[in-house]
Amino acid sequence: MSELRKDPVTGRWVIISTERGRRPTDFGVQENKAKGGFCPFCPGNEDKTPPEILAFRPEGSPRNGPGWHLRVVPNKFPALRVEGELNREGVGLYDKMSGIGAHEVIIETPNHPETLATIPGQRFEDMLWAYRERMIDLRKDIRLRYAMIFKNHGEAAGATLEHSHSQLIALPIVPHLVVEEMTGAKDYYRYKERCIYCDIVRQEIQQGERVVLENADFIAITPFASFSPFESWILPKRHNSFFEESYIHEIKSLALIFAETLKRLAKALNSPPYNFTLHTTPFNEKNLEYYHWHFEIIPKLTKYAGFEWGSGFFINPTPPEEAANFLRELSP
Amino acid sequence: MSELRKDPVTGRWVIISTERGRRPTDFGVQENKAKGGFCPFCPGNEDKTPPEILAFRPEGSPRNGPGWHLRVVPNKFPALRVEGELNREGVGLYDKMSGIGAHEVIIETPNHPETLATIPGQRFEDMLWAYRERMIDLRKDIRLRYAMIFKNHGEAAGATLEHSHSQLIALPIVPHLVVEEMTGAKDYYRYKERCIYCDIVRQEIQQGERVVLENADFIAITPFASFSPFESWILPKRHNSFFEESYIHEIKSLALIFAETLKRLAKALNSPPYNFTLHTTPFNEKNLEYYHWHFEIIPKLTKYAGFEWGSGFFINPTPPEEAANFLRELSP
Repeated sequence: MSELRKDPVTGRWVIISTERGRRPTDFGVQENKAKGGFCPFCPGNEDKTPPEILAFRPEGSPRNGPGWHLRVVPNKFPALRVEGELNREGVGLYDKMSGIGAHEVIIETPNHPETLATIPGQRFEDMLWAYRERMIDLRKDIRLRYAMIFKNHGEAAGATLEHSHSQLIALPIVPHLVVEEMTGAKDYYRYKERCIYCDIVRQEIQQGERVVLENADFIAITPFASFSPFESWILPKRHNSFFEESYIHEIKSLALIFAETLKRLAKALNSPPYNFTLHTTPFNEKNLEYYHWHFEIIPKLTKYAGFEWGSGFFINPTPPEEAANFLRELSP
Repeated sequence: MSELRKDPVTGRWVIISTERGRRPTDFGVQENKAKGGFCPFCPGNEDKTPPEILAFRPEGSPRNGPGWHLRVVPNKFPALRVEGELNREGVGLYDKMSGIGAHEVIIETPNHPETLATIPGQRFEDMLWAYRERMIDLRKDIRLRYAMIFKNHGEAAGATLEHSHSQLIALPIVPHLVVEEMTGAKDYYRYKERCIYCDIVRQEIQQGERVVLENADFIAITPFASFSPFESWILPKRHNSFFEESYIHEIKSLALIFAETLKRLAKALNSPPYNFTLHTTPFNEKNLEYYHWHFEIIPKLTKYAGFEWGSGFFINPTPPEEAANFLRELSP
């Protein structure tokens, strides 16, 4: 059973994962999977993953068999487990909690060589529908406070399997960066009585220099204080605190702009490794005037070093205006 | 001229470094220097670095020539520059500041193949004296608020030159993680009227299971909520908010425990890449009852992925008690 532990100074929680327990000698070993080897996410290998939680497949196609075009399964090596009670405990000045949560894998395509930059548009949209369905389902579990949806693409960005997939980790606490964003957004709202993200959307459209793409419902920008080169955010124009409360036409519109942003990053940077994460409102909040869901995409282009880890202060060698200009000028 | 920009939501500052400006096509290029090639930090090549700010060398040995055993020089490609005025400016809802600061390199040994795990004890101590001298000098500049001292060892930890060196970046703002630590420590102090780090030192000595090494003045521990496997902190037993106000015997004592900790990490993990950072009190503060300087060492053993970037929430596959036990049992 893994454990959640809180840093007594900063209040950040970490997962101490004993199930993945690694001895010192394990760290030298390369984890890289040989390309072209056996893939547990390919059609025909459905019995190599835990049974599916959700799948999009033609009518009549049997569960846990081939024929699907998207599958959601529990992670075989989960960082957290759904079973058990949420015990909170103190150890002297320290606090810990049992490692309760959910850890799921969204397999975005049956077609092994495809990536989100090459996948058909309908598949991309289906991925977003799957995110939405899983959020709606998991928020019913009162032990859980937040579901983090993210993707690691490429080995350097932490992907251990090549077959295109994203992950969902649902947690009994709200992650630190989410709390930080919400606190900052709340402070701004108190002062201005406006959502800071709505103001960002307005200012970016007006200034134009950091806009990569825009459609009726969304903008894709390289944020003003990008910590990473070619960092890109996708923000809905309509104020909405919960991703899962997006309208149908918004999900369709998001699929288009999100896919095109990834295509351009792939073209500009020679298919770089990247991570993206959904930032949305914690389960136990109501609709908030001050918080605004969005996606953040971080191409993995630089190595973070001591300065960044020690300070939370990043040096970005590419001004976001240059990155946006470059991405904007690529033909679709 | 680089620019400091503030994320309007989280309040984090980033350096947008135009001097290091990189075009999309630059990111594919490997930056790795060939081993055994020309080294600007080796004796005889003093004219390949900017003129020295500080050097430890025998009497009579001329400045900027060989003979030194430690040198501090400005970084040839600085993230921030000392010259200029500190202009703060708003752009709509965004805030920025000119990239004023200092960026220095501490060359810890003239002997190219040496590392901090193999260096003679006196050299290690000299490195700490150099840190102290540079802090005392830089805090006189009223534009500066904080000096971050850090080391990147090994390419995977961000070192671009092999020759053993550490860096100092002095900033006109206090970095986010430092503010966060200080705020957390202050909250604890308000509640308990004790320094949280003093309490950590006491509890760790009493529990013992996370202590790696201990001497009269310091302990080396693997912290309770380690975010990274084999993360190690070195804490002074005496409450002191400023590193640069350490006593002479403390610097000597620190050199011993710090060097031994690095030797054990090198032995346990096959000379891993690592980062360390000094955490100390900002220049414009007085002695604080609630903050306690320390070093944090992070071996670079895992790849951080989307989940960590998106949440500030880390999964650590090695319980700190196992790491401490392993390091403790290695013979010196």
